[in-house]
Amino acid sequence: MTKIAIYDTTLRDGMQAEGVSFSLPDKLAIAQCLDGLGVDYIEGGYAASNPKEMKFFHEVSKLGLERSKMAAFGSTRRADCTVEEDVSLNSILATKAPAATIVGKTWDMHVELVLGCSLDENLTICAESVRYLKSKGLEAIFDAEHFFDGYKANPEYAMKVLAAAAEAGADALVLCDTNGGSLPHQVAEITAQVCRTLGSVVVGIHTHNDSDCATANSLAAIQAGARHVQGTINGMGERCGNANLCSVIPNLAFKMGLEPLSPEKIKSLTEVSRFVFEVANLPPVMSLPYVGDSAFAHKAGLHVDALRKNKLTYEHIDPAMVGNERRFLISELSGKSNILAEMEKAKITQDKTLARKILARVQELENEGYQFEAATASFDLLVRKIMGTFEPSFEMLKYHVDVEKRNSGQIVTEATVKLQVGDRIEHVVGEGDGPVNALDAALRKSLEMFYPALKEVQLFDYKVRVVNAKEGTAARVRVVIQSRDKQSIWGTVGVSENVIEASWLALVDSVEYKLQRAAG
Amino acid sequence: MTKIAIYDTTLRDGMQAEGVSFSLPDKLAIAQCLDGLGVDYIEGGYAASNPKEMKFFHEVSKLGLERSKMAAFGSTRRADCTVEEDVSLNSILATKAPAATIVGKTWDMHVELVLGCSLDENLTICAESVRYLKSKGLEAIFDAEHFFDGYKANPEYAMKVLAAAAEAGADALVLCDTNGGSLPHQVAEITAQVCRTLGSVVVGIHTHNDSDCATANSLAAIQAGARHVQGTINGMGERCGNANLCSVIPNLAFKMGLEPLSPEKIKSLTEVSRFVFEVANLPPVMSLPYVGDSAFAHKAGLHVDALRKNKLTYEHIDPAMVGNERRFLISELSGKSNILAEMEKAKITQDKTLARKILARVQELENEGYQFEAATASFDLLVRKIMGTFEPSFEMLKYHVDVEKRNSGQIVTEATVKLQVGDRIEHVVGEGDGPVNALDAALRKSLEMFYPALKEVQLFDYKVRVVNAKEGTAARVRVVIQSRDKQSIWGTVGVSENVIEASWLALVDSVEYKLQRAAG
Repeated sequence: MTKIAIYDTTLRDGMQAEGVSFSLPDKLAIAQCLDGLGVDYIEGGYAASNPKEMKFFHEVSKLGLERSKMAAFGSTRRADCTVEEDVSLNSILATKAPAATIVGKTWDMHVELVLGCSLDENLTICAESVRYLKSKGLEAIFDAEHFFDGYKANPEYAMKVLAAAAEAGADALVLCDTNGGSLPHQVAEITAQVCRTLGSVVVGIHTHNDSDCATANSLAAIQAGARHVQGTINGMGERCGNANLCSVIPNLAFKMGLEPLSPEKIKSLTEVSRFVFEVANLPPVMSLPYVGDSAFAHKAGLHVDALRKNKLTYEHIDPAMVGNERRFLISELSGKSNILAEMEKAKITQDKTLARKILARVQELENEGYQFEAATASFDLLVRKIMGTFEPSFEMLKYHVDVEKRNSGQIVTEATVKLQVGDRIEHVVGEGDGPVNALDAALRKSLEMFYPALKEVQLFDYKVRVVNAKEGTAARVRVVIQSRDKQSIWGTVGVSENVIEASWLALVDSVEYKLQRAAG
Repeated sequence: MTKIAIYDTTLRDGMQAEGVSFSLPDKLAIAQCLDGLGVDYIEGGYAASNPKEMKFFHEVSKLGLERSKMAAFGSTRRADCTVEEDVSLNSILATKAPAATIVGKTWDMHVELVLGCSLDENLTICAESVRYLKSKGLEAIFDAEHFFDGYKANPEYAMKVLAAAAEAGADALVLCDTNGGSLPHQVAEITAQVCRTLGSVVVGIHTHNDSDCATANSLAAIQAGARHVQGTINGMGERCGNANLCSVIPNLAFKMGLEPLSPEKIKSLTEVSRFVFEVANLPPVMSLPYVGDSAFAHKAGLHVDALRKNKLTYEHIDPAMVGNERRFLISELSGKSNILAEMEKAKITQDKTLARKILARVQELENEGYQFEAATASFDLLVRKIMGTFEPSFEMLKYHVDVEKRNSGQIVTEATVKLQVGDRIEHVVGEGDGPVNALDAALRKSLEMFYPALKEVQLFDYKVRVVNAKEGTAARVRVVIQSRDKQSIWGTVGVSENVIEASWLALVDSVEYKLQRAAG
């Protein structure tokens, strides 16, 4: 089967999406998740843009990714300096990523208007930039910006730019529909022309969704001979987003007989999609093809009936192929495949009655606003509770949180926690920069003398989301906390109408998970 | 220019979307809106499904629609009765709609499995059903269910069904990709074959988005000769939705040189999209092509810079063509250009010193964790403060927040606010489901007697993020609040190490923005 290279740019182009901003731990968590999925390339960021990006490249190299190659993004050298002096190119080298992706101009108007140099000069710029990266031992991917618009305006020049990059040793020539304005028949025709002319180099495709054709344009290019496709998880990206890898990958694998990833890996696509939404602190888009919660949800009575008779007649693929599941909206009863997978991992699916019980409870909690995608530690505790193997480490008797701000600007935050461990009652006070921090301080202070292992636990990330945004702050909030010790990172979740209580629930789960694990 | 008939099925297929349910007034309001847009057909509903649908057809006829023709949906007659006895067909007649759309089976497997009759019998059923509607003077549109799957399985039979409907007098043969599994190259090839064989009848296309190709499939069919396209506003529909008319229409008009609607009418597309979201009680999808709030929003500094030099280089069309507008997002990646563009809109860039001052302050605040992208109201207040035109509506003397949970499980939340307006000091207490809600309640309670305009303000969304996640809950948090009154929605932001203080800052900005605007 023909292999198609999957190039993920969630961490660079995806972060251009309105309302999306990834912290360093967010980026590391997503990189790890993408490596688990097995994409061929992970574009880590625009190396020269800010120090956070550089730090990410250094941190990610320590993660020891197994399947994916890191790529650093930048542009061809500036018109007014040499490659050796160029900040963007040297930033790429400084990341120590094995692959470099540089964007170069192919639209004559842009060369003159934006770059402000001659058309010939741009050819030299592109060639020299690629050659420089190759001379340093990097894989060089050339992103041809506005290629389709450039080709429509001046085909000879657009092809000349590609030829210059190819001659300089580019490993891939990626045709970018930068403003997302192209339609599939145009992309197919132009890509075929490029493949005919420069067939010895790998041709790639990078599309945006401004015409609602990002996925179709990617497929059209691949049908025309491209063998490398760039996109983002959930199609996140500037304006209308990038090509959605969660759609492109299964289309290639199941409908075009190509090999983007192994079928086994594609089964984790739904989980990956939801994980990225969660990290981005965005509500998952229900109607997303293949991986959305509604993608295999059936409402029409007719369809449901036919599905019962022959499950394939109203579904284009078996939802399990992408790790998703069928739902009947009339009967709500369903099992989450990722939860099932979790249970398989925990080796508890042999017991069918137990599995059903857990599913029912998960469903109940999800209706209340819980989500276990990024909170597997809370899920683990839930399973132990239902199995009857959970031993609480303490009993809460009371907590109290107090925040006061004076005219002077001074803010005083205090939390007290009263709890019982065995026969002993502890009542302690904690301070902090905020109420959750103070609560966390008091909780640990009261427990550390009984459980010294808690000393190595650190809170690492804290997220809050309103579950039903319609009613503003009176609605339920979901708090997700990431904690870590020396060995690992775990996520816990709490839901309540009260953000303090939701935080408390997530804090307690974090502590209990650590202690249960320490107890073995 | 070639006219393409636009057939809207928002009120029938669109209502199959998860979480969508239209009341009778909702349906009437949408019908009126679609008539304003000028679509050729409005499918009003499945006539036989319930009395509400029938009532709608009677009510809508009183509205006196000017441009659109109403279509009633149903299916071909049952296998065990005559057309005269058939409930579905007679329900269509009872609606008195001038057009009838009936769905018929074309996939051999479905005929046998779902309908339970012979393949020949189904040909008779389709022909008789069409003939019956024509004999009653209706325009008859034949929706060929699962046509592409049917064609792939048994092309001769699928074509025979179309031929039977055509011979019986069908005015249009609509090829339906019912489960949304087809890709554009397949749709193009099969549609071309149909047009070659049955070219004298209008061929139509009806697609679903399960492969993320609904729009592209519609365009592919039209390129292959179809002249009628079915879809919904915002792509609403079962599972992953239907073809989105808000994408299909501008693609046809501006990229394929066809005439779906007049350019003047297409200018109302963004308004229509938002209206339908509003009636469906769904939050608008920001990233929707053409009509989404983010569709022409620019974040990357490089792009913004180029846009200011020549507005067309990073946009595929002029947003005004679909009634949308360009926005510049203010974010850490944007550099100076976005802020300058935003200031240009506010007409304050003439003063270079002021512009520099604002820029410096924004950068300072961004370093502290602020983000103004979703909080333009806070940005607006910031500008007024720097310009010296901001008049605070009150002075805060103290606030106090208190949350306590007892062993019984009861949680008590209380907030007090002490503030001064003019010479008067108010000290009030508020309750709420959570601390922010309680604080909001106290703040309004203390201000509403001075500023009654605040009574119409509602909190609408509330988001919290840790800005520097490395240090867990001790890090800074950013709170973004969306507020709304009858006319508009505005976003405000607050950053602090304390989530209560960050929320307070965002609440105060929300109130101040409302009052500054009310003051003019």
